[in-house]
Amino acid sequence: MSKIFVLGHKNPDTDSICSAISYAYLKNEIGMDVEPIRLGELNNETLYALEQFNFEHPRLVTRVSAEASQVILVDHNERQQSAEDINEVQVIEVIDHHRIANFETVDPLYFRAEPVGCTATILLKLFKENGVAVPANIAGLMLSAIISDSLLFKSPTCTQQDIHAARELAELAGVDAAEYGLAMLKAGADLSNKTLEDLMSLDSKEFEAGAHHFEVAQVNAIGVDDVISRQKELEVLMEQVITKKGLSLFLFVVTDILNNDSVGIVLGEQAGIVESAFKSSVVDNRVLLPGVVSRKKQIVPVITEALS
Amino acid sequence: MSKIFVLGHKNPDTDSICSAISYAYLKNEIGMDVEPIRLGELNNETLYALEQFNFEHPRLVTRVSAEASQVILVDHNERQQSAEDINEVQVIEVIDHHRIANFETVDPLYFRAEPVGCTATILLKLFKENGVAVPANIAGLMLSAIISDSLLFKSPTCTQQDIHAARELAELAGVDAAEYGLAMLKAGADLSNKTLEDLMSLDSKEFEAGAHHFEVAQVNAIGVDDVISRQKELEVLMEQVITKKGLSLFLFVVTDILNNDSVGIVLGEQAGIVESAFKSSVVDNRVLLPGVVSRKKQIVPVITEALS
Repeated sequence: MSKIFVLGHKNPDTDSICSAISYAYLKNEIGMDVEPIRLGELNNETLYALEQFNFEHPRLVTRVSAEASQVILVDHNERQQSAEDINEVQVIEVIDHHRIANFETVDPLYFRAEPVGCTATILLKLFKENGVAVPANIAGLMLSAIISDSLLFKSPTCTQQDIHAARELAELAGVDAAEYGLAMLKAGADLSNKTLEDLMSLDSKEFEAGAHHFEVAQVNAIGVDDVISRQKELEVLMEQVITKKGLSLFLFVVTDILNNDSVGIVLGEQAGIVESAFKSSVVDNRVLLPGVVSRKKQIVPVITEALS
Repeated sequence: MSKIFVLGHKNPDTDSICSAISYAYLKNEIGMDVEPIRLGELNNETLYALEQFNFEHPRLVTRVSAEASQVILVDHNERQQSAEDINEVQVIEVIDHHRIANFETVDPLYFRAEPVGCTATILLKLFKENGVAVPANIAGLMLSAIISDSLLFKSPTCTQQDIHAARELAELAGVDAAEYGLAMLKAGADLSNKTLEDLMSLDSKEFEAGAHHFEVAQVNAIGVDDVISRQKELEVLMEQVITKKGLSLFLFVVTDILNNDSVGIVLGEQAGIVESAFKSSVVDNRVLLPGVVSRKKQIVPVITEALS
C-alpha cells in the first residue's frame, strides 16, 4: 500500500495540525502507513503547542497527488478548503465537526462528522473505539486543539463533550487546562511578528452560498486596536483577494480573546448584507460583533443564509 | 421539541425500513421524540421481516415538512433519493453506508457513514456507544437488514464487520441466520404478486454523474427468466421513466439470488457505455453481468466512471 496523507484545511489552525498528527498516530498504531502533513504555515498558537509537547512540524505538502493516491481529511470536508489537487486523490476518510458542503465521492468511505466543538473530541472517541491508549504528548496536542477551537471553553461551539474530553486529556497530558490554555491562546494572539499578509492568510476560509463565493478570515488578538489601526492597509490586500478569487464578500474578523467580542472589516459587492444579517451598523467598512467568537456557528451560517 | 422523522430512501428496501425503525427505537430510548416513517411501498422481503418480528408498518409520509421540521436520514444521503421536500426540513443526522453526493447542510450535524455492507451494522455500534440494549425483535430487524443488503453474506459489499454484527444479532433475536435469511430472501424474490410497474419501482435509485442523470433498478428473483420474459413490456415503462426524468441511462437489473448472477436491461441515449464499462456485450438491450449482485459496489461506480 502506498503512503496515505492525513491533512487538515488550508491556512491550518491548531485543530487541523494537532488532529492530523494525533489521527496519524492512531492509524499507524492500528497498522496503516500514514503521514500527517500541513497545507500551509503554522500559526504562533500551533507552534507553541507543538513545542510544549515536543513535536516536529508536519511536512508542508502543496501537491498531495505527487506522493499519495489516498488521503484522510480532518477538520474539514469542503473541497475548496482542502489541497489544490484534492480531486486527483481518493478521500478514504473524513473526521470533521463542520457543516458538510461541496463534498462528493464515487465510493463509500468512513465519514465521521459530529456537531461538537473540535475534531480532537471525536478523535478521543476513535482512540477508545479502536482500543488504542492516548500517550501523554498526543493528549497534550488534542487538548490544545480543543482549547483553541473553544477559546478555552467560551465559544458557543463548545459542547459538554468537548469539556469532558478536555478534562480527560489534560489529566493524560499532566497539565492544568486553564493555565496551559491561556498561555497557548496568548502565544497565538501575539501578532507582533506578523505582517499584514500573514494576518490575511493566518486563518482564512472560503465558502459557497448559492451563486456566491465568500471568505471569512479570523485572527485572535489581545484587544482589537492593533489590528484595526492597520485597517486601510488591510483593505488594499482584501480587495486584491476579492478580485483574484471573484468573491462576493470578504469579512475579516478580529476576535478579542480576553473579552470574547469581535470586530469585522467587510468588503465586496455583497458587503451590504452584513448590516441586516448581523443587525449591526457598518461604519467605515467596520462592524461590531459583540459576543461573536465562532466563525462556524455565529458567522458562516448567518452569511450563508443572507446570500442564499 | 416538535416531532423528528427517521427515514430511509425512496422505494425503500429492508435496510431502509428496518434501520429507520431500529434507530428510532434507540433515539426514543435516549429521550428524543422520533418516529420512523417510509417514503414508499414495502417490498415482500421487508413485509416478511416485519411480520416475523411483529412490527407494524411504518407510516407512509410523502411530504415530511408538513409534520416535521427536522429529520434523520438512514441508508441514504443523496437528496434525489430522499423525501421530495427534503430541502424544506433540517437534516440533523445521517447514518449511512453509501457514497456521499448531492448533500449539503448549513450547520454542522452528526454524519456517520462507514464503508460497511449495511446501515444496521453501524446502528449496532451506536446502540453500544449509547449504552442501550438491543431487544430481541429489534435485533431481528437489524439482522434482516444485514442479510438483505449482503444477500446472505455473499455480496462483495459484505464486510467482516457485517458478518460479526449479524452473528451477534442472530443470537439476540434467537434465530438461525442462514435458515431465517434464506426464507426471507425467498419471500422477497417471490414476484408473483407484482405488476410490471411494481417491478420498476420496487428498488430503483437515481444517481448523478457529471452532467448525466441515471437510474438503476434492481430486483431479486429465483431465476431471471420470469422477469426477462416480460422484457418488451418493461422497456415501454423504462422509456416512459427516461422521458419523464430526463435520464441519460436506465439499467434494470435482475439478480438471481441462488446463483448470484445478474442480467441487465439497458436503455437511454448513453446505453452504449455499458458494453465497455462492464466488458460485456449488449444484445437486444440485454447484458449479462456474471457475479454482479451489488448495485453500490459493482454497478454505480462503474457507470459513474464511464459517464463522468
